[in-house]
Amino acid sequence: MRRHEGVALLLSFAVLTPQLQADDKTALGFSAAGLASQKELETRFDAALDAKNLRAWMERLAARPHHLGSPYGKENAEFIAGLFKSWGYDTRIEEFSVLMPTPKQRVLEMVAPTKFVARLEEATLAADKTSGQKKEQLPTYNAYSADGDVTGELVYVNYGVPADYEELALRGIDVKGKIAIARYGGSWRGIKPKVAAEHGAIGCLIYSDPSGDGYTQGDMYPKGGWRPNDGVQRGSVKDMPIYSGDPLTPGYAATKDAKRLTLKEATTLTKIPVLPISAADAQPLLAALGGPMAPESWRGGLPIPYRLGGGPAKVHLKALFNWDMATAYDVIATLRGSELPDEWIVRGNHHDGWVNGASDPISGLVALMEEARAVSTLVKSGFRPRRTLVYAAWDGEEEGLLGSTEWVEAHQDELRAKAIAYVNSDGNSRGTLGLGGSHSLETFVNQALGDVQDPAKKVPVLSRARAADILGGSGDAAKKARKKKGVGLAALGSGSDFTPFLQHAGVASLDIGFGGEGDYGQYHSIYDSVDHYTRFMDPDFSYGVALAQTGGRIVLRLSQAENVPLDFGPLVAALGDYVGEVRALADRMRDETEERNEDLEDGVYNAYFTPYETRVAPEKRTSVPHLNLAPLDNGLEKVRVAVAAFDKARGAREGKPLGAENARALDQVLLACERALTRDEGLPGRPWYRHQIYAPGQYTGYGVKTLPAVREALELRRWSEAEAQAVVVGKTLEGFAAQVDRATELLK
Amino acid sequence: MRRHEGVALLLSFAVLTPQLQADDKTALGFSAAGLASQKELETRFDAALDAKNLRAWMERLAARPHHLGSPYGKENAEFIAGLFKSWGYDTRIEEFSVLMPTPKQRVLEMVAPTKFVARLEEATLAADKTSGQKKEQLPTYNAYSADGDVTGELVYVNYGVPADYEELALRGIDVKGKIAIARYGGSWRGIKPKVAAEHGAIGCLIYSDPSGDGYTQGDMYPKGGWRPNDGVQRGSVKDMPIYSGDPLTPGYAATKDAKRLTLKEATTLTKIPVLPISAADAQPLLAALGGPMAPESWRGGLPIPYRLGGGPAKVHLKALFNWDMATAYDVIATLRGSELPDEWIVRGNHHDGWVNGASDPISGLVALMEEARAVSTLVKSGFRPRRTLVYAAWDGEEEGLLGSTEWVEAHQDELRAKAIAYVNSDGNSRGTLGLGGSHSLETFVNQALGDVQDPAKKVPVLSRARAADILGGSGDAAKKARKKKGVGLAALGSGSDFTPFLQHAGVASLDIGFGGEGDYGQYHSIYDSVDHYTRFMDPDFSYGVALAQTGGRIVLRLSQAENVPLDFGPLVAALGDYVGEVRALADRMRDETEERNEDLEDGVYNAYFTPYETRVAPEKRTSVPHLNLAPLDNGLEKVRVAVAAFDKARGAREGKPLGAENARALDQVLLACERALTRDEGLPGRPWYRHQIYAPGQYTGYGVKTLPAVREALELRRWSEAEAQAVVVGKTLEGFAAQVDRATELLK
Repeated sequence: MRRHEGVALLLSFAVLTPQLQADDKTALGFSAAGLASQKELETRFDAALDAKNLRAWMERLAARPHHLGSPYGKENAEFIAGLFKSWGYDTRIEEFSVLMPTPKQRVLEMVAPTKFVARLEEATLAADKTSGQKKEQLPTYNAYSADGDVTGELVYVNYGVPADYEELALRGIDVKGKIAIARYGGSWRGIKPKVAAEHGAIGCLIYSDPSGDGYTQGDMYPKGGWRPNDGVQRGSVKDMPIYSGDPLTPGYAATKDAKRLTLKEATTLTKIPVLPISAADAQPLLAALGGPMAPESWRGGLPIPYRLGGGPAKVHLKALFNWDMATAYDVIATLRGSELPDEWIVRGNHHDGWVNGASDPISGLVALMEEARAVSTLVKSGFRPRRTLVYAAWDGEEEGLLGSTEWVEAHQDELRAKAIAYVNSDGNSRGTLGLGGSHSLETFVNQALGDVQDPAKKVPVLSRARAADILGGSGDAAKKARKKKGVGLAALGSGSDFTPFLQHAGVASLDIGFGGEGDYGQYHSIYDSVDHYTRFMDPDFSYGVALAQTGGRIVLRLSQAENVPLDFGPLVAALGDYVGEVRALADRMRDETEERNEDLEDGVYNAYFTPYETRVAPEKRTSVPHLNLAPLDNGLEKVRVAVAAFDKARGAREGKPLGAENARALDQVLLACERALTRDEGLPGRPWYRHQIYAPGQYTGYGVKTLPAVREALELRRWSEAEAQAVVVGKTLEGFAAQVDRATELLK
Repeated sequence: MRRHEGVALLLSFAVLTPQLQADDKTALGFSAAGLASQKELETRFDAALDAKNLRAWMERLAARPHHLGSPYGKENAEFIAGLFKSWGYDTRIEEFSVLMPTPKQRVLEMVAPTKFVARLEEATLAADKTSGQKKEQLPTYNAYSADGDVTGELVYVNYGVPADYEELALRGIDVKGKIAIARYGGSWRGIKPKVAAEHGAIGCLIYSDPSGDGYTQGDMYPKGGWRPNDGVQRGSVKDMPIYSGDPLTPGYAATKDAKRLTLKEATTLTKIPVLPISAADAQPLLAALGGPMAPESWRGGLPIPYRLGGGPAKVHLKALFNWDMATAYDVIATLRGSELPDEWIVRGNHHDGWVNGASDPISGLVALMEEARAVSTLVKSGFRPRRTLVYAAWDGEEEGLLGSTEWVEAHQDELRAKAIAYVNSDGNSRGTLGLGGSHSLETFVNQALGDVQDPAKKVPVLSRARAADILGGSGDAAKKARKKKGVGLAALGSGSDFTPFLQHAGVASLDIGFGGEGDYGQYHSIYDSVDHYTRFMDPDFSYGVALAQTGGRIVLRLSQAENVPLDFGPLVAALGDYVGEVRALADRMRDETEERNEDLEDGVYNAYFTPYETRVAPEKRTSVPHLNLAPLDNGLEKVRVAVAAFDKARGAREGKPLGAENARALDQVLLACERALTRDEGLPGRPWYRHQIYAPGQYTGYGVKTLPAVREALELRRWSEAEAQAVVVGKTLEGFAAQVDRATELLK
């Protein structure tokens, strides 16, 4: 579901606790001898991996369209389950009954100033052997769009995020009673119709501009891998930042007999009809727009002047859906832990695609499967994991993390009691290793992955990831990355199945995957095929094998470590950064408010505005008060003190193992640490999201907001809420410090 | 010649001396009574201005092509001289004999992988009645291109500035033995073939990307005013940062019998053949390029993947020229001062165009003419300027400031003795007033222009200019602009006729003109016509009248002020900024060098580079030593002290006029102050450029480099030269301080 290209993740640059820098000889939770035998295990694990399996399974799983509710999706689930069973996993398919709208009627036509009927279809290509499976392909549409039949003037809204509407307002343009056309990019797609509707639009089109993933990026498919002009990006437009999963069962499992909301009650459905369209369908509409030129940065790659409208282009948009239920089939395969069966490591990747989904998600799934198979070969030669491994292949991720969310909601109590970590992957391709997750796992990850090699470059994948942070990063971020020896974890927003684990259940989570060097123009189209993947994404599946090595090391070390291998130093550093950012945000908003108000008083806007187009000065804003954010500092200080004591106690304990009972007790305390960063009441206005440090932004969608309750209150200029939430978050931090203190006690 | 769009000027934000902020009641050099009568004079001046004259003269002057050496150019000079004579000016035409190459043969064809022959011609448009004057139009070409007949692989070099070649080198791509294709923008055009040749290219194409001034900016001419796909930008490619004016007579006047360099000796001619081409001619060439994708920021508005080459596209470029001499006709019209005839105010605008040149330069010229005519009506009703006014219409500006440079070189001694200021304009259009010039004139300009109104907005033009600095500026620049009550002058680089006055002769200069709200896509093409101008640039000539008001006020106040109205406070502030910038540049280079070297040692580049394309790590660099820039600070400190004493003495003198003789002596000292910022030896490697504070950059062309001797030595990593030049510039500043002290003495 997610895209790899880095829009979703805000990098965090917490500094590694120096004594825990990645090296060959230390690893949290392992004695020197234990580490040596773990490395020997990893060597055998690597030897068991075979790229041929990844290829064969991809060819099988992506052979036909396999979206949620499709016959082939069910067949795939059974095929995957069969393999897991054959490898000795205790395997079952769990079913959930979820809302899965499909198009009944789609019409898009320009009715003025000239007539044009949009094609709304992607072409079959001879060079792509599955692109012609028309009967099984879902048409191009956005899931959870409202039904609608509307006609109105068209307005170009750039990415369709709130800042874009401020630019429009400066030009006296609104979308009230009109249809917004937004380009893909700049936010999760679900944000676009949400914000359009908030501004009074009656419909929304989302198109793929060639500057995003079309010819501006490289040769179009099938010559290159980039989106052809008639390629369309399908996708969910659910208001996922409110709650994840099935729209009709927020917060509880969508079992067959669950009580369900009515469609009207489901707050995550869009308020207006939405349709995704191709560059080819968009160009005549955009070219027909009048009104002022769009701001420079809004202009895309089409060979036309980008104008804002509204009108004279007027379009008729009709989008009607079958509001059916579908069954989601989650494959759950368990390998019971030999010593600590009630401590779980959950490892998941979804199996449903929008069409054939070779890249998204099969490329990640087949790596996970090969990882699980290799683990099973170790088991066959005598290895037993200390802790329980749970492999999962989720269904219905594309519609909004349905399979994973419903499963987490169904197993919430068990997960809260038992889950040490969730490790997620999704689509994979050649490129750099992306690492996101809970910062308490940062040191562990750097230690665990030190010897995974980039298959093309033959350098450590961590070196490549660090290099990308340095040379691919901007000024300050690059400087921070350069100061670290290891790789910082990106804070997680949303966009894949880690969300219910991390942000709802409070399970420490990781998200892993390679990417950035494929021609990624097939996203959510019929061209996401084996043909495309094996030409432009990872032709020899070597990065798939690298992902299996990555996932396998993480899972095996989490399983075998003496105690849960958390290190809170990077979390402290990240929290320090976030608190600093929130404070700087308030100061910047104060300065900007003062400057704007001063400019308004001085007539600067009026003098600046061109007389040849409508211009409207922004409104004066109330000053930003100086806010009491001290509770954040105080909470952070308690965390600092607690973590320092924990580190000291753990250092003192080195070489003196805890007894089995104490070790188990310590694990119980440690696995609850991430939970201590959540609140049962959740975030303001969206109780489903419980994590107080990481959440998807309400107006970014995938993009993370750290310290979301405080940061978003500031962004929305709710000063008293920001102060109140600083108290709440400060208390959460204090609670986390108390939890760390409990661990310290056990170490003494 | 210059473009208005702001690439040429680096804004300076020196803070106005607070007591001299623009207000209605104070003006440097005027008593309260004097100011009242000056304002009354300005009211009468304004009343004499008539937009109809501007329109009629433009229709006359732009009726046929009138480039340097054309019959109509000569007719225009005579027409202009006739008018000045009729207004009572002592008028003459001064002639210079200058090098004016024109095309003999132009061929551009792609010879591989497919055949394509470039059209190299702009289409006649029915909607543009002069566009069909084929017989008199200069073909599309770049003046001072070398002769050449070359065939080679094509390489796309973005803007063709040095940083672009660093990017190419990172990708293992060079232009040795190849032909570079650069897009217009990012530097003065003459820099592109110069840098290409420095890197071994055998030819250079420069094309107009639609993102610059074509359809990406708005509707193409004739529907809108933006460059049609077959529009071509002609222009000089002389290496103007070495010396300005006729290539064969550097530093002395190109009189008929002057000793001339041979073509081989002329260092400002290009080393390789160059041809400017249209987007339509460029697209097939660029589309045929292979090799890696160009970096994101290099991709323009054509609907193709921008690749770097070299090859497989291979082109044949043949450009042969008639290396003829032409006569430049400068019109010089003088109105002798009644009291101080040996103190001159020179006011100029060029009259030659590339083709019909309605916008460039006629729009500015007709405003200057109307200004001069209005002055003459004042004279007819009894007004006599105290000082001498010299109005000039320059020829041959387009080829490289030929007419103005040769005239300055011819009259150098007189100018150095007599010229108080030079006031330049060039093309004009609706929009914001651009103000560049010597910072000692900043306070004066803000006081003189306080009541000039924007004709469309009915707000003071200074308010619009300040608003543009604030709301159109980026972060820090906007903050600085907001702190000022007045408008900062931009430091002058080059691109119009102020260069020989300011940077060679050391005459305090101003450059004035409105712009930014026209559809400026006709630049240097056959479409720079009356039809275009009156539809898309300044249809009612109201901004032309505003320019006449602006120029008139400046000239009349300079003429009538008791003493030369210089204020050194803004210069001190600007110098402080520049010294700070130079210091920061050295520090930034030191940091970047250390970071790069560290990354190279750590293998960060190797890890970062994609394995799918060639990548070459940059070389390690020697560290940047800590440099002794203290001589700059010491020089600046002397200036500060001298200026404070001068301000104090002038304050004490207020209301107690100097006697006539002392006043004359003071003027002599003041008018030599700008000269005190120059050195007879000029800048390192380019002695023609004498100013030590302002110069066009050797690798920017139009763009200014302040403190050029030090700044460019740093940029070129010549550390000992930077230190040596800091001493030289410091001494220059001390000399300037001594000059100010002389003025202070006279005030006592």
